[in-house]
Amino acid sequence: MEGYGFLFDLALILLSTKLFGLVTRKFKMPQVVGALAAGLILGPAMLNVLQETDFITKLSEVGVIVLMFTAGLETDIQELKNTGKASFVIALIGVLVPLGGGFALAHFFNNEAIAGPGANIFLQNIFIGIILTATSVSISVETLKEMGKLNTRAGNAILGAAIIDDILGIVALTVVTSLADSSVNIVVVLLKIVAFFIVSAGGGFLFYVLFKKFQARYQKDMRRFVILAFVFCLLLSYCAEQFFGVADITGAFIAGMVISNTEHSKYIAARFETLSYIFLSPIFFASIGLKVSLPDMTGSIILFSVLLVIVAILTKIVGCGFGAKMCKFTNHESIQIGAGMVSRGEVALIVATKGAALGLMSSVFFGPVIIMVVATTIVAPILLKLAFRNDKGGDTPVPPEDQLKTNYQVLTSNSMELGSDMDSIRLTQNA
Amino acid sequence: MEGYGFLFDLALILLSTKLFGLVTRKFKMPQVVGALAAGLILGPAMLNVLQETDFITKLSEVGVIVLMFTAGLETDIQELKNTGKASFVIALIGVLVPLGGGFALAHFFNNEAIAGPGANIFLQNIFIGIILTATSVSISVETLKEMGKLNTRAGNAILGAAIIDDILGIVALTVVTSLADSSVNIVVVLLKIVAFFIVSAGGGFLFYVLFKKFQARYQKDMRRFVILAFVFCLLLSYCAEQFFGVADITGAFIAGMVISNTEHSKYIAARFETLSYIFLSPIFFASIGLKVSLPDMTGSIILFSVLLVIVAILTKIVGCGFGAKMCKFTNHESIQIGAGMVSRGEVALIVATKGAALGLMSSVFFGPVIIMVVATTIVAPILLKLAFRNDKGGDTPVPPEDQLKTNYQVLTSNSMELGSDMDSIRLTQNA
Repeated sequence: MEGYGFLFDLALILLSTKLFGLVTRKFKMPQVVGALAAGLILGPAMLNVLQETDFITKLSEVGVIVLMFTAGLETDIQELKNTGKASFVIALIGVLVPLGGGFALAHFFNNEAIAGPGANIFLQNIFIGIILTATSVSISVETLKEMGKLNTRAGNAILGAAIIDDILGIVALTVVTSLADSSVNIVVVLLKIVAFFIVSAGGGFLFYVLFKKFQARYQKDMRRFVILAFVFCLLLSYCAEQFFGVADITGAFIAGMVISNTEHSKYIAARFETLSYIFLSPIFFASIGLKVSLPDMTGSIILFSVLLVIVAILTKIVGCGFGAKMCKFTNHESIQIGAGMVSRGEVALIVATKGAALGLMSSVFFGPVIIMVVATTIVAPILLKLAFRNDKGGDTPVPPEDQLKTNYQVLTSNSMELGSDMDSIRLTQNA
Repeated sequence: MEGYGFLFDLALILLSTKLFGLVTRKFKMPQVVGALAAGLILGPAMLNVLQETDFITKLSEVGVIVLMFTAGLETDIQELKNTGKASFVIALIGVLVPLGGGFALAHFFNNEAIAGPGANIFLQNIFIGIILTATSVSISVETLKEMGKLNTRAGNAILGAAIIDDILGIVALTVVTSLADSSVNIVVVLLKIVAFFIVSAGGGFLFYVLFKKFQARYQKDMRRFVILAFVFCLLLSYCAEQFFGVADITGAFIAGMVISNTEHSKYIAARFETLSYIFLSPIFFASIGLKVSLPDMTGSIILFSVLLVIVAILTKIVGCGFGAKMCKFTNHESIQIGAGMVSRGEVALIVATKGAALGLMSSVFFGPVIIMVVATTIVAPILLKLAFRNDKGGDTPVPPEDQLKTNYQVLTSNSMELGSDMDSIRLTQNA
């Protein structure tokens, strides 16, 4: 271990994340933006007092695994089933349209010079599309809550669709990242993915059964459950990569979904949230900012950034709006739903990081992706307020029998905090 | 980042730590022994499926810093003042005698072949003594509680002395490790240490004032306090090493003591405990086991191990017992106190690790130190039961006015858990 500099690096990242987080909070932006800013400003893009080291890289990988694990942990499968067909359709079309839009945009910009020699440009372009698929709904929820419009048909639909599109996005990511190794043909890849899901389900079931027995015997010591859950998560992540060519973050997400069915999942989730927000999340998101290098920001890339923002906004409004229209929402509601799905956040960043690590995304695109995330975050509340402004009393509140089966209490104070799950909705019973 | 093997390493360490922890719990040994066993068995000493990597080393360093920070955080300075002169005397002599005994033993065994060419053998021998200074009282507390003998004069004295001897041990460690750099003369070293304490006190006071103002303004968001405390801890640790040549773990401990005076210290401590037990502590203690190599365990070293155990046991019984006698405890009580101070644990391991990193201890001594820790842990309850066995009703319970000023509730269920503070006593008000 050469020197103690890494302690200083950690302190710097955590402190800047918090300071910038204070600023972004004033502007009602999620604190992920603060962590990004910390990495951007301290890193090679600006002050260059901090560079990405192997320690930071590995710690970030553990961090993103814990983030995805927590997301899986907090995905309520029952609730998913209850969200209804409309949310699924909205989510699906709201994934396909941005996917296509991002692909098309990348197609015009990406070339061998950017992508690197011998790169699979087609796959890379699809990857830009995948980055655009997942909505980060926390800021929409915050805005809707303020406006008192959360409990409307549109608000409900947004919530349901956001959960589903996270999962769809992860599925798309899994398929594409598994294809990154160009020597493998697609049939083998798909078979491996299916095999992984089967093995995870089997291993998960086994783990679940052992866990329950274990819980029954050792009621007193909750800490063991937390550590065993962590072990399961790490092992599944490792096995996903090592034996199935499946992204480790997918393994972590699935591990989280398995554990979410056990008795102490809330306790476990809370402990991992602590691990995330104190330590791992700031480091992960700051490390993304550290990857941006200013020389990469040519005029061409800046133009790309602008267009990426526009494409990101339009494709969600159009895609989700159209999906809503197909499900018999009014024109007005469809636009509201589209606007609510616009903001991107943690998932887009996680996907981009994964892609770059696998050679599926050139690192010149980190700048544009970050700009896109921040821009959609700023624009989304504005769009929402516009969309909902003209119907004072016009939104029919959702009758109780049509509400999501569990009364949901959106813990938005947590949802804006770094380290909470991706679509930060805790669908819990009303106290 | 080459490969995902480090995820598997982490999973393996955490799982083994837990499994071995189950075994040690059955034998009423602290779980630190389980983590040590995990490192020993998985590492080069036995199965060799795990080697110490740079990632593990750096993570362990963060881990030991958090451990020491938490220890400082949970050191109740008020309570310290209330422990009384007797505990101080017992602690002091109970530090000096093992220091001398360890030094003498090392003097006979250490030589240039073991220590390395050009090494400061005198300093290294003192270091072996320092390893023997700190008691790990959790197992004594557990045993006394079971016997219902905790609330006796002897029990009280043990509790008080244990806290103080941690601090004395850290002071001794700080002085000796600062002397590791042989190019510096001792006066400069002592001045630097004093300067560090002054700067920490000043910086700590500044931080404390800012923290209080901050807390008053931002009551809602507890998470910020945790992160800011962590930043303070990391910065102080870094500055200690970088600018004062003082051990980073000393900086962390002092940072903890500063924060322990703030309003939310319990909340902060709980959050760091989570970080420790889920992640950092198992890695730190396992990494110690990873440092042991069997070829080092020559006949000579094995003999050294046996003698180290004997010296460790005898010097505490004699030192603390004598100190107690000087403070007017009865012969019987003095032996009880001596027996209660015998067991060593986390601090001895932390000191050894620090020494090895600074070239103040040859790595061949890891095996003996681990053996000594485990052996004293096994022997201590036996000695205590013997010492207390003959006085059914003979121990005068401590009258209320002489009890430690805060009624203490020893959370021994936590004290035996990995990651809790060194002398795991939470001196809290009775609920």
